Amino acid sequence: MLLADIGNSRVHIYDGKLVTHLSHDEMIEKYIDMELSYICVSSNMKERIKDIPKWRDLSHTIHIQGEYDTMGVDRKTLCMSHDNGVFVDAGSAITVDIVKEGVYQGGFILLGLKAYTNAYKSISNALDYEFNHNCSLDFLPLTTKDSISYGIISSIKSAIDTHPDGLPLYFTGGDGEWLSRFFQNSIFDELLVFRGLQKALKGNI
Amino acid sequence: MLLADIGNSRVHIYDGKLVTHLSHDEMIEKYIDMELSYICVSSNMKERIKDIPKWRDLSHTIHIQGEYDTMGVDRKTLCMSHDNGVFVDAGSAITVDIVKEGVYQGGFILLGLKAYTNAYKSISNALDYEFNHNCSLDFLPLTTKDSISYGIISSIKSAIDTHPDGLPLYFTGGDGEWLSRFFQNSIFDELLVFRGLQKALKGNI
Repeated sequence: MLLADIGNSRVHIYDGKLVTHLSHDEMIEKYIDMELSYICVSSNMKERIKDIPKWRDLSHTIHIQGEYDTMGVDRKTLCMSHDNGVFVDAGSAITVDIVKEGVYQGGFILLGLKAYTNAYKSISNALDYEFNHNCSLDFLPLTTKDSISYGIISSIKSAIDTHPDGLPLYFTGGDGEWLSRFFQNSIFDELLVFRGLQKALKGNI
Repeated sequence: MLLADIGNSRVHIYDGKLVTHLSHDEMIEKYIDMELSYICVSSNMKERIKDIPKWRDLSHTIHIQGEYDTMGVDRKTLCMSHDNGVFVDAGSAITVDIVKEGVYQGGFILLGLKAYTNAYKSISNALDYEFNHNCSLDFLPLTTKDSISYGIISSIKSAIDTHPDGLPLYFTGGDGEWLSRFFQNSIFDELLVFRGLQKALKGNI
């Protein structure tokens, strides 16, 4: 069965073997006549696809103990993938969620890399720099460009570091693999959300 | 003598006793006929005021050992205020700079609170919340609003916490007093930049 995780900017589709990443428009064009189950956080996209006959919205079947009312369905699904863990989804936003023995403990939301760099630009043209993925945290920066990249990486890393709790640290999302490199013993798994979706589907049979 | 610290959005003027905060336009209107020395990081404003006869641009007289080429003059001035310290200027951006024995060691730039909240909004309407200044870091949030505020405060605080180095921790800027409350033994001083300016002026006599 095809599973889709529809985000605010990108769609991720899992066929049981591989994940395909595409845009909202590309998804509709390519998959409109195929059986597909999805979760969706984009209100825009929700409205566009709700009447596609072969597509099934799983959003209302996704629940984790301890969840709160306005918790995004993608975060809930991600948190269902393992019974214990700190789950970091690094996409347009970076969500950090903690689960202990299957119960959601809470979490927080950081900016995604693109939102971060755009935000610096919005403050001043003097802060308009491309993000340097290779900026090291081993030395204090001595250029404006690296002052920004260091600020971004250091604030993301140190905020996540404050919640070790002895739990496994999982990363997923478009920038997940890159970000996971800053953490020892971290696990990058592109399929985390889909593992949660599969669990949810099993629970509902 | 009147000293002015002209930022990208606000101006701070020190008369030796009090600091007045005002907009670029208000500054020009109110002080155009008075003797005044300034530093300015706004390229726009620099152009507007460069020919005002009674105003003196101190930017080119400000130097700290270890400075780098494109380092903002406000950061340099701030770093001259004390010979040892971690200097946090919480305004439109939050700059964090480290000085040891009068030598600049490097630093990094975080987003200011307004840029942070606007950036969340830019990702999705679902992340469009007012910042909660009273959000506690003692408990993991269980609402989207607090997930964002917690993410902002936690990432700023933990990034600064990674650089204690046994140095005094100084805060200044519009959000400096509020931010300093999250740090034990921190010092808030509205006059830090002006102390640096006074030092620079003395050095140039």
